[in-house]
Amino acid sequence: MRWIRFTAGGRTAYGIIEGDQIAEVSGDPFEGYQRTATRHALASVKVELPVVPTTFYCVGLNYAQHVVLAAQKLGIEAKLPDKPDVGYRTNNALIAHGEDVIIPADATDKVQYEGELVAVIGKRCRNVSEADALTYVLGYTIGNDVSERTWQRADRTLWRAKNSDTFKPMGPWIETDVNLDKLETIVRVNGAESVRFKTNDMIHGVALYISTISKYCTLEPGDVLWMGTDLFSPDLKSGDTVDVEITSIGVLSNRFLRATA
Amino acid sequence: MRWIRFTAGGRTAYGIIEGDQIAEVSGDPFEGYQRTATRHALASVKVELPVVPTTFYCVGLNYAQHVVLAAQKLGIEAKLPDKPDVGYRTNNALIAHGEDVIIPADATDKVQYEGELVAVIGKRCRNVSEADALTYVLGYTIGNDVSERTWQRADRTLWRAKNSDTFKPMGPWIETDVNLDKLETIVRVNGAESVRFKTNDMIHGVALYISTISKYCTLEPGDVLWMGTDLFSPDLKSGDTVDVEITSIGVLSNRFLRATA
Repeated sequence: MRWIRFTAGGRTAYGIIEGDQIAEVSGDPFEGYQRTATRHALASVKVELPVVPTTFYCVGLNYAQHVVLAAQKLGIEAKLPDKPDVGYRTNNALIAHGEDVIIPADATDKVQYEGELVAVIGKRCRNVSEADALTYVLGYTIGNDVSERTWQRADRTLWRAKNSDTFKPMGPWIETDVNLDKLETIVRVNGAESVRFKTNDMIHGVALYISTISKYCTLEPGDVLWMGTDLFSPDLKSGDTVDVEITSIGVLSNRFLRATA
Repeated sequence: MRWIRFTAGGRTAYGIIEGDQIAEVSGDPFEGYQRTATRHALASVKVELPVVPTTFYCVGLNYAQHVVLAAQKLGIEAKLPDKPDVGYRTNNALIAHGEDVIIPADATDKVQYEGELVAVIGKRCRNVSEADALTYVLGYTIGNDVSERTWQRADRTLWRAKNSDTFKPMGPWIETDVNLDKLETIVRVNGAESVRFKTNDMIHGVALYISTISKYCTLEPGDVLWMGTDLFSPDLKSGDTVDVEITSIGVLSNRFLRATA
């Protein structure tokens, strides 16, 4: 099942995608819903963020090749994380599929994509086992963890490097039927394939992360867990369009534009 | 003016504190409000979090003595931040005045308080000058940035060290009339004074932080900015009560209890 959040006729609602149509629901997939008689052409609606989380979890350094490449660029020894310590991003930075990433006027040229699998929590969970953890996931969407690498190295925190307004595209929808081991992530810049990797080749997987976080932190319905990225990105230029596809989920597409002041 | 959020008779609302009474309002201090005819005795209500933010900003290393003391404990050279890079905490960890901090069963004995001034954003702001920044603040409340120091050093991120459930007491209310330069922060453990410092002796002040953040990140009404702490904390034991007072704002009081499993 594919859940979309959308605006049509001035109203924002959740709906279920059926072919090229949306069956609008009242309520939402977290607290409960009922189908309505209203249908929309998928192509006619404004796609909204699939959810706005209470807490926005994001995993760093979760693919071995990415860790090695990042260490090479810094001239340091690569060290793979030995346990799933989670990080965070912020809601101010979220934008929907089809909206523009605005590169701040004073950013350097080192603005890059990171295509990521996003797990969307469906039910409140606290202290769940790794074996049970995935039953608390409603489904999966796609994130682009846009990063300004110069700020990432120079600042004490990741705040503007990763959380500037518009730096966190997420969407286009939530797919509930996913076989993690079959997924591939493909990132395209202006239509040309840039990187491709097995989505689930993670150092620590979704279930272990959810189980570990839930020992200390209650996960709420609608919380999102971005799972990190593999490989690398070229430096993006104003006017570039980045598509992050995860097979069987969809394509998250956003144009990058540099602010003029 | 003092804004409180509270529950009485099964209903949660905002109100204005007048002596030992609360004048209930409809609406809220961010989007607009109207006084109602309903009044409550302040002592009779359940105090709630004054606000739940969209983004929870928190400043680290913002008092010189605290930086020096922290560096001494790590055996490294103290280095004062030369610019206001902001960090974050998470909503799952928030609890109200009077609620218990639950120390996880596997935490070490190194659980400590950090008494902090909290600025509550009143109006959306983006790219505001330092001179104008404080006009976007609705008022000030108090935070206790509870920290498990062993995890803080051992983990790659601050996630459970600072964001375990119940580790972020905030309240009891929002005071709108504050002279920052006159404030003193006093922390008491079981009634005995533990530390006292000038609240505004910050390396980088509230106005500079808001102005800097707003160059890249839109601050929303109800967002909170925790301003860091000075000095040190003893290790807290199960059963201890920590009061964080900031003069002319109020007292945030919470008991610490260790979970048994």
